[in-house]
Formats: sequence, structure tokens, C-alpha cells
Amino acid sequence: MEVTLQAALDALADPIRRRIVRELAAVPDWTRPCGTFAHLSVAKSTLSHHFAVLRGVGLLEQRDEGTRRLNRLRREEFEARFPGLLSLVLAEEGPAGHGEAYEEGR
Amino acid sequence: MEVTLQAALDALADPIRRRIVRELAAVPDWTRPCGTFAHLSVAKSTLSHHFAVLRGVGLLEQRDEGTRRLNRLRREEFEARFPGLLSLVLAEEGPAGHGEAYEEGR
Repeated sequence: MEVTLQAALDALADPIRRRIVRELAAVPDWTRPCGTFAHLSVAKSTLSHHFAVLRGVGLLEQRDEGTRRLNRLRREEFEARFPGLLSLVLAEEGPAGHGEAYEEGR
Repeated sequence: MEVTLQAALDALADPIRRRIVRELAAVPDWTRPCGTFAHLSVAKSTLSHHFAVLRGVGLLEQRDEGTRRLNRLRREEFEARFPGLLSLVLAEEGPAGHGEAYEEGR
């Protein structure tokens, strides 16, 4: 199913979703479980919704490993569909996705 | 004043505004008055708001000529600030901005 520009813009117009994207871009694929985004201070159900929206526009791939749900940003695939759009999000100033907000293994 | 990515995405997440942008891209600068967008079937005040939003993110320049308000799409300027974003909008499928919907001099 082809993702529409409308859906992509709607997905990325949300600042929390852009932050999730930037945080995932800052770590290797499949290393960051969904459970490590609690610092974003949104309800767990809201966070699940954000992940679902990002999956829906082809920006995110997820797989379960034991009790953890791991994430991969579909950078190349999304770039092929919407050239330049992801780069704008990653270049945006704002919380970067490492440092105090998230530590491996926490 | 630097336009934020948030403002740009909010502006372009609206399908009517993207259509205005595509229609303006289809004609030479300063040839298309605001009064020729009545075919979009939105209230005049709504249309004014859409134009204001597009001006606000640096996508649109306007000048008055007699009783007409003419438009110029700030393509190069917007492209320099948000590389690739305008191209995605212009490549989007949808009403193109010429043909039956608008005729010069109507």
C-alpha cells in the first residue's frame, strides 16, 4: 500500500513523533525497546498510538524479542518514498535521543 | 525570523493549502490573483487564512495591484530552508491548478 504525503505529513506534524524518530536515528537498529521512551512523559497508550502511526507510514519496523519490542527506523525505505523529508526531521533542533534521557540497559 | 519545521509541516499538512501551492507553481509568478481560487469551495475568510498561513511560513509573497492581490510562490527561498519539502508537495497527485478550474482573465 502506497503511503500518501498527507499521511506522512500528519505523522510528522506531531513533535513527540518527530522526537521518537530522532531518538531512534541516534542508536543502531533493533537496540531500542519501546519501553525506553518513558522519559517522553506521555501516557503509555499515547506512546503506543505514536508508534502505530509511525509504523503506518512506513517509518518504523518493530519486532518482539522476549518481553521487549525492538524498533528499527526504515530510513532508506522512507527516503525512497519521500526524498528529503526524514532529513528535515533529523536535522531539526531539539532533544536528540541520547544523554540523560536514555541510557542503554536502564 | 526563522520558520520552524513544526510551522512548515503544520502549513503543508492541510490539503487545500497544498493545492494552492500546486496551483501557484503551475503559473508564472505574479499572474494569479487571490480572487481566482473560488473554485476551491471554501469560505473567503478561510481562504484568506490559508494564504496567511502560507505567507507565515515563507512560502508565499503577495502584492496588491489595483483591486487584485497577486501571488508569488517563494520556491527557491523555501527550498533553501526546507530542502525537498516543496518538491514533495508539487509531485503529489491531485488537482493541478490549470484546465477547467481556472482560466486566465475569468
